[in-house]
Amino acid sequence: MNKKKIVNDPVYGFITIPDELIFDLIQHPWFQRLRRIQQLGLSNLVYPSAVHTRFQHTLGAVHLMGLALEVLRSKGIDITDEEKQAASIAILLHDIGHGPFSHALENILVPLHHEQVSDLMMKALCHSVDDRIRLALEIFNDQHPKRYLHQLVSGQLDVDRLDYLNRDSFFTGVAEGVIGYDRIIKMLNVKDGLLAIEEKGIYSIEKFIISRRLMYWQVYLHKTVVSAEQMLIQIIRRAKELAQSGESLFATPALQYFLMRSELDLSERSAWLPHFVLLDDSDVYSAIKVWQSHPDTTLSLLCRHLMNRILFKVEFQKSMFTPSQKEEKRKRVSQNLFNHKEAIPNYFLLENSTSNSAYSKQTGPIWILLKSGELRDIAEASDQLNISVLSEPVIKHVMCWLDQPL
Amino acid sequence: MNKKKIVNDPVYGFITIPDELIFDLIQHPWFQRLRRIQQLGLSNLVYPSAVHTRFQHTLGAVHLMGLALEVLRSKGIDITDEEKQAASIAILLHDIGHGPFSHALENILVPLHHEQVSDLMMKALCHSVDDRIRLALEIFNDQHPKRYLHQLVSGQLDVDRLDYLNRDSFFTGVAEGVIGYDRIIKMLNVKDGLLAIEEKGIYSIEKFIISRRLMYWQVYLHKTVVSAEQMLIQIIRRAKELAQSGESLFATPALQYFLMRSELDLSERSAWLPHFVLLDDSDVYSAIKVWQSHPDTTLSLLCRHLMNRILFKVEFQKSMFTPSQKEEKRKRVSQNLFNHKEAIPNYFLLENSTSNSAYSKQTGPIWILLKSGELRDIAEASDQLNISVLSEPVIKHVMCWLDQPL
Amino acid sequence: MNKKKIVNDPVYGFITIPDELIFDLIQHPWFQRLRRIQQLGLSNLVYPSAVHTRFQHTLGAVHLMGLALEVLRSKGIDITDEEKQAASIAILLHDIGHGPFSHALENILVPLHHEQVSDLMMKALCHSVDDRIRLALEIFNDQHPKRYLHQLVSGQLDVDRLDYLNRDSFFTGVAEGVIGYDRIIKMLNVKDGLLAIEEKGIYSIEKFIISRRLMYWQVYLHKTVVSAEQMLIQIIRRAKELAQSGESLFATPALQYFLMRSELDLSERSAWLPHFVLLDDSDVYSAIKVWQSHPDTTLSLLCRHLMNRILFKVEFQKSMFTPSQKEEKRKRVSQNLFNHKEAIPNYFLLENSTSNSAYSKQTGPIWILLKSGELRDIAEASDQLNISVLSEPVIKHVMCWLDQPL
Amino acid sequence: MNKKKIVNDPVYGFITIPDELIFDLIQHPWFQRLRRIQQLGLSNLVYPSAVHTRFQHTLGAVHLMGLALEVLRSKGIDITDEEKQAASIAILLHDIGHGPFSHALENILVPLHHEQVSDLMMKALCHSVDDRIRLALEIFNDQHPKRYLHQLVSGQLDVDRLDYLNRDSFFTGVAEGVIGYDRIIKMLNVKDGLLAIEEKGIYSIEKFIISRRLMYWQVYLHKTVVSAEQMLIQIIRRAKELAQSGESLFATPALQYFLMRSELDLSERSAWLPHFVLLDDSDVYSAIKVWQSHPDTTLSLLCRHLMNRILFKVEFQKSMFTPSQKEEKRKRVSQNLFNHKEAIPNYFLLENSTSNSAYSKQTGPIWILLKSGELRDIAEASDQLNISVLSEPVIKHVMCWLDQPL
Repeated sequence: MNKKKIVNDPVYGFITIPDELIFDLIQHPWFQRLRRIQQLGLSNLVYPSAVHTRFQHTLGAVHLMGLALEVLRSKGIDITDEEKQAASIAILLHDIGHGPFSHALENILVPLHHEQVSDLMMKALCHSVDDRIRLALEIFNDQHPKRYLHQLVSGQLDVDRLDYLNRDSFFTGVAEGVIGYDRIIKMLNVKDGLLAIEEKGIYSIEKFIISRRLMYWQVYLHKTVVSAEQMLIQIIRRAKELAQSGESLFATPALQYFLMRSELDLSERSAWLPHFVLLDDSDVYSAIKVWQSHPDTTLSLLCRHLMNRILFKVEFQKSMFTPSQKEEKRKRVSQNLFNHKEAIPNYFLLENSTSNSAYSKQTGPIWILLKSGELRDIAEASDQLNISVLSEPVIKHVMCWLDQPL
Repeated sequence: MNKKKIVNDPVYGFITIPDELIFDLIQHPWFQRLRRIQQLGLSNLVYPSAVHTRFQHTLGAVHLMGLALEVLRSKGIDITDEEKQAASIAILLHDIGHGPFSHALENILVPLHHEQVSDLMMKALCHSVDDRIRLALEIFNDQHPKRYLHQLVSGQLDVDRLDYLNRDSFFTGVAEGVIGYDRIIKMLNVKDGLLAIEEKGIYSIEKFIISRRLMYWQVYLHKTVVSAEQMLIQIIRRAKELAQSGESLFATPALQYFLMRSELDLSERSAWLPHFVLLDDSDVYSAIKVWQSHPDTTLSLLCRHLMNRILFKVEFQKSMFTPSQKEEKRKRVSQNLFNHKEAIPNYFLLENSTSNSAYSKQTGPIWILLKSGELRDIAEASDQLNISVLSEPVIKHVMCWLDQPL
Repeated sequence: MNKKKIVNDPVYGFITIPDELIFDLIQHPWFQRLRRIQQLGLSNLVYPSAVHTRFQHTLGAVHLMGLALEVLRSKGIDITDEEKQAASIAILLHDIGHGPFSHALENILVPLHHEQVSDLMMKALCHSVDDRIRLALEIFNDQHPKRYLHQLVSGQLDVDRLDYLNRDSFFTGVAEGVIGYDRIIKMLNVKDGLLAIEEKGIYSIEKFIISRRLMYWQVYLHKTVVSAEQMLIQIIRRAKELAQSGESLFATPALQYFLMRSELDLSERSAWLPHFVLLDDSDVYSAIKVWQSHPDTTLSLLCRHLMNRILFKVEFQKSMFTPSQKEEKRKRVSQNLFNHKEAIPNYFLLENSTSNSAYSKQTGPIWILLKSGELRDIAEASDQLNISVLSEPVIKHVMCWLDQPL
Repeated sequence: MNKKKIVNDPVYGFITIPDELIFDLIQHPWFQRLRRIQQLGLSNLVYPSAVHTRFQHTLGAVHLMGLALEVLRSKGIDITDEEKQAASIAILLHDIGHGPFSHALENILVPLHHEQVSDLMMKALCHSVDDRIRLALEIFNDQHPKRYLHQLVSGQLDVDRLDYLNRDSFFTGVAEGVIGYDRIIKMLNVKDGLLAIEEKGIYSIEKFIISRRLMYWQVYLHKTVVSAEQMLIQIIRRAKELAQSGESLFATPALQYFLMRSELDLSERSAWLPHFVLLDDSDVYSAIKVWQSHPDTTLSLLCRHLMNRILFKVEFQKSMFTPSQKEEKRKRVSQNLFNHKEAIPNYFLLENSTSNSAYSKQTGPIWILLKSGELRDIAEASDQLNISVLSEPVIKHVMCWLDQPL
């Protein structure tokens, strides 16, 4: 059977599956599951076409990894075929640990971070599918001596970001988020074992940083999206509370399993992993729809509001909310809940903060390879863009609250 | 509140919601439900990005309707503001009666055709939301004297087709399916009360017909998609059989309602409609995942195969399958079920036929408005393309069967 | 110096110059000249953005040749590095013999066909630049044993057509002309030494044929373009007549050289080639602008009309024009020239015919490689599109005449 | 005759000519001339597809003006039909005074700035074509009370910039230069008589500023382009010197006219304008090709180098070139001219400086209309992008010199 398959992709035209092992991993039920997990959680409530999935994103990232490694090889960087395969597998599986609604419910529904789960699942696949995944794990966990391979999987300018910025701007229709991914990839190089961008690619990097910032505020942290995701979190919080206090709740058995548990013993993966790999967005959607008529007023109100897209009002501000601001909103919520005395007000008034830096030094700098052969941090190499300003995180304080009488 | 909203759409850039009534209908839970029904059923198993929804398609069709009506008005066709709104509502709601997986499960899960349900739901909305929907219903049902308004909603060259061909080729990445929708719309005219295309648009129409044909064979009737959809149908058939014989089956209450019933009394819409409007793809996905471990071997085998994308083998041929061809496949299925004696072989060997004509005269011809002022059927006006050949339906006989031992 | 350059191209993103010899040929003044020859002659009078040049087209075709050869190699077809380079050079230079306005003035301004000139220039470059061009010449002239290499340069489905259909539809903005060039290339194969398309690419080929037909009638043979190009031909005819009868005419020396001669002795290439390689569109444009005030009324009238885009009226019809139709137009022309008695009426009333077949068997069929391993002509393999009809040439008879009084 | 024509445009799909007066102006020979003047001078030597013309750009800007005015009207800004037409004419004609090679030869070949010439030509058209152009002139010259109309024609965020950034990035293939023109236009508003962008458009504006900066350094001031344009300027300087000292030079009469004159009396437009309106790129190209064999060594060397794309070497640096740097290059030039003693070294060693600010306050700020109703300069409203840094001009000192022995 010919496993060198070609997949149509509206973003890149065609994606070629590079080899049989990768093909087999894509066919694995754990990976197929990503077809049913949307990349951007509830962003489709604002951008209706943003229903693309982790599955597509991951294939796209594999495609870019292939291009990037070919560029590096053509510049004389020595990358063996095994390393090439392993880097592709590392990026293929980097998101396999995502649960329903990706980041929106991360750490809420299942009390785990997706990278931890990806790591565990890769280890399991190493045993059950193919031992060659071990090299991918090394790269994924930055234990491989060629550190630039890890940087391509997870860094300031990795193929993950290149694909998601590109893909998310494509599917949301926010054309301004588009980046010159092909030009950036052509400018990649390695110097002193570090991934770098050749000097003439500097404007493309500036553009990349600005586009990322734009996507954050216009899509990922869009007010309406934040409001909807906060409501979703409250729904799951309340459902867990009810489930753990013995209330009966409709749910698939897999979802039931996690609603009942407040903590997981990561080390006992054979206990929870079989349930985890059955979860996707449909478990959550199908439950929330049923919960709209649950006897618990708090739960049913939240569910009805979310499903009918009557969302909480949101305010963002740079400073913390003052006690009087909070008090005022608390009063509004009370009034709006007048006909639902049993509803717990806390669930209808939420406070949070979001933070984003367009360029963050912690992840390590983006290195520019000057014509002179030196490496320089983009923050210094850019002759004008004030990247030191861009790298300070923008913190926005958020309040969401029920704004209509029910 | 400003209800003249703008929606980002990767296909057209921006879509403006034309008025408040339409905005309110979009906000209605029945319409929001379309966000959770994929336009192309299981086509995403072949084209991973084809996860776009009925919601997007319908907004796109409303957008094209607005453009088309403006073109006609600019050519002196008298269309009142009420008619414009009604035509937009008719296209907005034309697909509201779709159930989970759109056409793939039409008439199978819920024993109804989507147009019938759309009609009923529009009538209900007329009562509960706004009486102006009545005019839309007249257009939808071809009872309005300006027949070209109906033709724009449902005809050989309606805005429904213009949007779905365009959108489906965009999201599948099958770039060849792209049509010159903007040029076609600019060439629209009305003559003798009929919708027509001006003569110089004739090549665009030929192209439209060929693109439609290509999309049928390359996407809608792609072998792998046909195989997956046949498997989905068998799953539902089996689940209904079990449910109706008293077996216990995990399902949301809404899905349960329809699994239990083999027939519906359409006239009693108050009985079934409240259940219907809760259904979307997630009810089916969440159930199938659970059914993978159902004690009924037939059901659980089918579910495991579909979820893990181990699909039945398919053959298409122009002539009917001969008894010996069928016999041979029957033997294969028996062998492959060797370890599952309780499985019912019929569910693993399916026969069907597909039919498609690129241009079908029954729906009425596409009229070309000649420079001389006469109308002529494209089939005669095209100086070369053999549309009479294209209008003969292509029938392909299909067999799908279990091809691997389990 | 790094000659492995990357060129930005709006159609394909980036084009990589494959090797140093090809880079040197691109830098050659004869090739640089193509930057100043528009691909589509006067089509920009209808499609203002269609000012793209032979230079871009040729680079694009080289890019597609590279993709095609890689696909064939990946399917096990043995192609040496020398053959790969030679095929790329053959396509790079296939249009080098084009003169000003490409096809529009072919055989009119310079009494030669562009292929003949390309052949001569390739031979000359063989001597002056690099002997490796000899292998390219063999492929170009179909004297190479691997005939599929020639078919990629010049056949029914060559990379020339793939690029020009793609590029011309891109730059004219006739989006409907777009073809699935990438899919077609991925489906290429070689069987019995012939270039073929794998069976599953059949719809893409049908689409390619229809798109080509659409581009012919909508762009290449657009009425207004035909009218303008006929006027341009009359201008050159008249200018040659005047020049050869001793009249003084402004022109660059190179243009002068060809205006003075009615015939060329191909064998004496050292006489005329040095003049030919100086010609481009600017010689013709700069002359026509000056000739607008030439004392010869026929010439100056034609030039003023063309430069100011007051074009002749055109009629196309399927049958030949009857004597009475011609007579009627002759009268109109006489009336319209009333104030310009010295003008020669023949130049203001033109008759011609155009012919195009969407699929022409003479160039050899497009072979489909069936799954069974057999080759079949697309005309038989297509289960529905009536290619035998499409392969009959459509002949349209054309008359153009001066329609306004001057 | 139907003058409401539709024009295909690859950037926007279709452009509708808004009315008959505008149609007539487009048909005017002075405007048709823009079909033969490339938008980006010699940028096509780096970006081969950047051969698009002032004609296309201007139609595109008219299209955007129409969209912008419709947006403003829909927000309640009162704009009469006459004002709408006048604003469209102002933008249609804003570039009509451009000469060959647009900015590259501005003030060199014809000793005038294009805006001055546009102004004069608009006045002339006012007399000869239609008096309604007078209102367009008022807007063009900022003499109209509704100043936002002028700002749309010429300001920091005018439709000129929106079109050229968009179009130049499209045709160069520098995809990163793309801007969200449609979103920016939808966010336009007027407050206190000034053009402003609504607050939620702020990220689009940041993106616009960064894209503009990127286009400057990557396209408009690309080193190779700067080198070629400097060479072109030297050619014209030398040709004028020779012509004015009585040397015979091949040239069209119109070009001849300007070569002979070092100064023009603007007030006597009837003397020079008839020559000016005949000039386009072809006059210059056809002359330079002939001058390649001119007896003046300086001229012919420069021409041969430019036509064959053997360009001067360029260096950019932030500080001024030191005497020793200059001396070193002077020596190189002398050595390289060893075989051409008669060549004047000055013409082969050029010094210059370029300057660009991504955001320049002189043109007036970009106003952001806050939700509170206040106007604020983007430089203050942007919560992070350091626009005050971006508004400082980046000055780069440039030297170009002959780097190969001849």
